[in-house]
Amino acid sequence: MTDPQQACFEAGIKFGSLYHQFAGTPLSPDSADSLERAMSEAIENQPHCESVTVSILGDALAEELANSTADYTELTGRFMEVEMRIRYEDVTVETRMEMEEGYPLMKLVSVVE
Amino acid sequence: MTDPQQACFEAGIKFGSLYHQFAGTPLSPDSADSLERAMSEAIENQPHCESVTVSILGDALAEELANSTADYTELTGRFMEVEMRIRYEDVTVETRMEMEEGYPLMKLVSVVE
Amino acid sequence: MTDPQQACFEAGIKFGSLYHQFAGTPLSPDSADSLERAMSEAIENQPHCESVTVSILGDALAEELANSTADYTELTGRFMEVEMRIRYEDVTVETRMEMEEGYPLMKLVSVVE
Amino acid sequence: MTDPQQACFEAGIKFGSLYHQFAGTPLSPDSADSLERAMSEAIENQPHCESVTVSILGDALAEELANSTADYTELTGRFMEVEMRIRYEDVTVETRMEMEEGYPLMKLVSVVE
Repeated sequence: MTDPQQACFEAGIKFGSLYHQFAGTPLSPDSADSLERAMSEAIENQPHCESVTVSILGDALAEELANSTADYTELTGRFMEVEMRIRYEDVTVETRMEMEEGYPLMKLVSVVE
Repeated sequence: MTDPQQACFEAGIKFGSLYHQFAGTPLSPDSADSLERAMSEAIENQPHCESVTVSILGDALAEELANSTADYTELTGRFMEVEMRIRYEDVTVETRMEMEEGYPLMKLVSVVE
Repeated sequence: MTDPQQACFEAGIKFGSLYHQFAGTPLSPDSADSLERAMSEAIENQPHCESVTVSILGDALAEELANSTADYTELTGRFMEVEMRIRYEDVTVETRMEMEEGYPLMKLVSVVE
Repeated sequence: MTDPQQACFEAGIKFGSLYHQFAGTPLSPDSADSLERAMSEAIENQPHCESVTVSILGDALAEELANSTADYTELTGRFMEVEMRIRYEDVTVETRMEMEEGYPLMKLVSVVE
């Protein structure tokens, strides 16, 4: 296996980890900041993970709650965007998760040696 | 069912939620503060939950990492203490999770009408 | 604390555990049976838990997938009903989770000494 | 990005998903079979995932419980081995998770076009 392949594998691990560790977490506008930060710092602990940025989408969250009798919901891909930078040996991988046609799509943005 | 019974049921839900949502989260001394805060604020979103205090046990975490080649571990009950206050109608329930004989034990501390 | 209160606390723990351990699991009609069984057997391991029955709601799942370009979704409360029986000392607690007004509601059904 | 890189990224996603969705699940010898099957079938729902084999390590589990006053534990990497085959376009990736020096290591086994 090549270093770029290993780097892409590592990048995928981080994405799957982040999503399935935190999906389902009770989420409100008041708790969004602390969850963003905890998700970033938790996944940055993993090997080869240089940086993680999580953005809870305030507009999507507000819209969900406006249509609801509850004042919180559960975290799913609809409510966040994620960017990560992974470094494995001399390879840097940039990845991104965002909604596409109603689904959270995790994708490779660049692989640079 | 009585209000105290309902209050105790609600208190149990919060404990199970907190533990199983966050168990397995990558954890290091650097990410402990943000995880404590995110856990508290996430579970406080749930109905009838007045306050949640999570304390990552720095000593237990440091000891685990001293015996490890890794610089992070995964959150389990060994690395945290939790206190919660639940209010259902006129009943206040205080609960606590701590280690006893090697196991994370969730217990009722008081039920007051 | 009384035995019925302890029993209700234990019942709540099991519900929160089940929900937050498995929420987010990839789910399709083909994988519904194995997930039902694994959820039941996993939570039945917990202390004082006599029985857990999980029913994935095939109709709700089919409707979700009919409106989707994907052939699977993620487990949330919309797609399951859960019944549990908890026994603590001489107290038996029956509990149930089902959707009410769009939300998964966990409730006490009976507390019998 | 090349197809092999995309395939490796997809393989990583599945591993991170499996681990962080199910870590922390209450586990005993009696519930091991149903959990193995549910984990496999759940992750096989994900795109590009051809097969997942999960083996709960009965010996490791028995040893843990022999040293414990409890009759169940929580799933972590110590108690399972996982093999996956991912197919993306014309690329097949084989991956494996097993313990190495006390840590669950997820690794690429082969990338074949």
